[in-house]
Amino acid sequence: MSNVNPSTVESLTHGIEPVSESWRAQARRRLDTLTKPLGSLGRLETIAAQFVAIRRERSHEPMHKGVFIFAADHGVTAEGVSAYPSEVTQQMVLNFLAGGAAISVLAKLHNVELAVINAGVAGDFGDTGGVLDRQIARGTRNLRREAAMSEDQVLRALAVGAEMADVAAIAGQNVVAIGEMGIGNTTAASAITCVLAGVPASFATGRGTGISCEAYAHKIVIVQASVEKHFGGTAAASPFEILRCLGGLEIAAMVGMILEAARHQLVIVVDGFISTAAAALAVAISPASLGYMIAGHQSEEPGHRILLEHLHLYPLLTLDMRLGEGTGAVLAMPLIEAAMALYTNMATFAAAGVSGASA
Amino acid sequence: MSNVNPSTVESLTHGIEPVSESWRAQARRRLDTLTKPLGSLGRLETIAAQFVAIRRERSHEPMHKGVFIFAADHGVTAEGVSAYPSEVTQQMVLNFLAGGAAISVLAKLHNVELAVINAGVAGDFGDTGGVLDRQIARGTRNLRREAAMSEDQVLRALAVGAEMADVAAIAGQNVVAIGEMGIGNTTAASAITCVLAGVPASFATGRGTGISCEAYAHKIVIVQASVEKHFGGTAAASPFEILRCLGGLEIAAMVGMILEAARHQLVIVVDGFISTAAAALAVAISPASLGYMIAGHQSEEPGHRILLEHLHLYPLLTLDMRLGEGTGAVLAMPLIEAAMALYTNMATFAAAGVSGASA
Repeated sequence: MSNVNPSTVESLTHGIEPVSESWRAQARRRLDTLTKPLGSLGRLETIAAQFVAIRRERSHEPMHKGVFIFAADHGVTAEGVSAYPSEVTQQMVLNFLAGGAAISVLAKLHNVELAVINAGVAGDFGDTGGVLDRQIARGTRNLRREAAMSEDQVLRALAVGAEMADVAAIAGQNVVAIGEMGIGNTTAASAITCVLAGVPASFATGRGTGISCEAYAHKIVIVQASVEKHFGGTAAASPFEILRCLGGLEIAAMVGMILEAARHQLVIVVDGFISTAAAALAVAISPASLGYMIAGHQSEEPGHRILLEHLHLYPLLTLDMRLGEGTGAVLAMPLIEAAMALYTNMATFAAAGVSGASA
Repeated sequence: MSNVNPSTVESLTHGIEPVSESWRAQARRRLDTLTKPLGSLGRLETIAAQFVAIRRERSHEPMHKGVFIFAADHGVTAEGVSAYPSEVTQQMVLNFLAGGAAISVLAKLHNVELAVINAGVAGDFGDTGGVLDRQIARGTRNLRREAAMSEDQVLRALAVGAEMADVAAIAGQNVVAIGEMGIGNTTAASAITCVLAGVPASFATGRGTGISCEAYAHKIVIVQASVEKHFGGTAAASPFEILRCLGGLEIAAMVGMILEAARHQLVIVVDGFISTAAAALAVAISPASLGYMIAGHQSEEPGHRILLEHLHLYPLLTLDMRLGEGTGAVLAMPLIEAAMALYTNMATFAAAGVSGASA
């Protein structure tokens, strides 16, 4: 089903069409006939029009939502960049499946199907039911010292993500949230942000899960050194090379899922900093994929704002969150449902017999 | 049931207790044991703690949500301050009941009970089913020329609102949104904002439903002149006098509902500019009522931001909306539900066997 040929990254961009501007224009015309002052639903109107531009003739299908959490570990934790030990990645995957994590609670509340994918956790799940085991390696190498992944690992991780977009499309999902879990992955996302957006490490680095002041200063040094090691002398790095040297297995899988979801014309809800780093790499690989993305929220990580501005994505929510797991994306889903319910079910001025505005 | 004695406005503040700081502290302690980095759910943690401070031992009751829309007309429309004719107030009430308005669609989608109250529409509903007819007058007088209401009208409108809070409490609702419909009521809200927040009309006045540049300039002049007429020489105006001279019947009813809802310890979700003007008057009457309020959103009306800052309320959503009807409040309800679901259902570090952060 997937059109990803592990031998070429080019195959990933094949078949991604731009969203339909004529469908968007048609949606805007309809919005202007509904019983409300012109434009008074604000960003919900923008979202409804984008949804129609993405889904076209399938816009009226009932909403079927999924959230995909890609988990993997990061060799860079050896540098002391996180407040939590790597074991927490695996422990949290088990918590996702047991229903005790934030994303488990939110997915259940908002009727979102939850899939948890082991893209490269440094541990074994054995017979644990529920996890989709696609482990490519037991974590990445330490990106501060060497490239985080081999070329083959990146391609395999991209294919894992693409497979999940195929799974979503086959299941009839039309809105998918992309989330992650990986101790150390804000360090990877910060380094990716530095290269993509051309900002120094001090701008793109935050406190992640909540490190001390001293650890934060150290993390900035690690990010800056990593960027310089791999891309110090490079004028223009390719997104594939950025991903390979600085990324994680879960980040590569998210890139693959985003590109394939765009090919399937699914609405993609981007989550926090790491999810947006994957989105930014996907856009660097295929600019047409941007039209399929909705930014669920803006997190507290300073690099997240930089990436959202880089992509010209405007977040639906700003709740000072910094958790990942797809939580910000799933929290935004009721707003997307509201936008489409209003678009579909509101009365027109003519049908309701309501007087229009004076010229 | 209502404790409002129409002969005294003081009775409105009787029995409003401050929210419980000890319950809030207890909620915060629990939040810190859940499987997430400390504070990483951001504003959802603040909302959960506030919810517990309001509801105390009843915090775990299932959420039962209501939205109350108070409709009334405004004599100040004679000054040409709105893009829509007054008839639209009545037409939109019919649209609310028929299910075609934005709030009808959102209330249905998010499982919120909708009540529509005629507090003073300039028209008759006859046998129209569904509207709660509490018409006090056929609209207010023109606040630019005279006091909008008599003292008796204000007291009766306050009692109508208080009755609705009683209805909500008896029905077992624990979260109520307060919305409105009334052509011309942004002019009233702007004038109220000028007096309460001490800002000039040009700061507190917006384009309402969407008037032209010329009409906007004219609206500012009307607001400024109205404020000067009634409060030009007054050092400190009482909230009751501000309400009587500049308010609307729906605004007075909202003030009454808010105060009585606070007495019943309900969670009050404030909507847009007009709803927040009522909230600000309620706080001026009873400062303890503020603790019961959650700001659903920040609208595009410039006066709304001024009032939210005046109240130190931080809106959950900022979606560039300007519709009223309770729409912004109802859109925020899934976030409040999410906050409480996370608070109630997430696993603790101990129970899930997840390692904590390093010191």
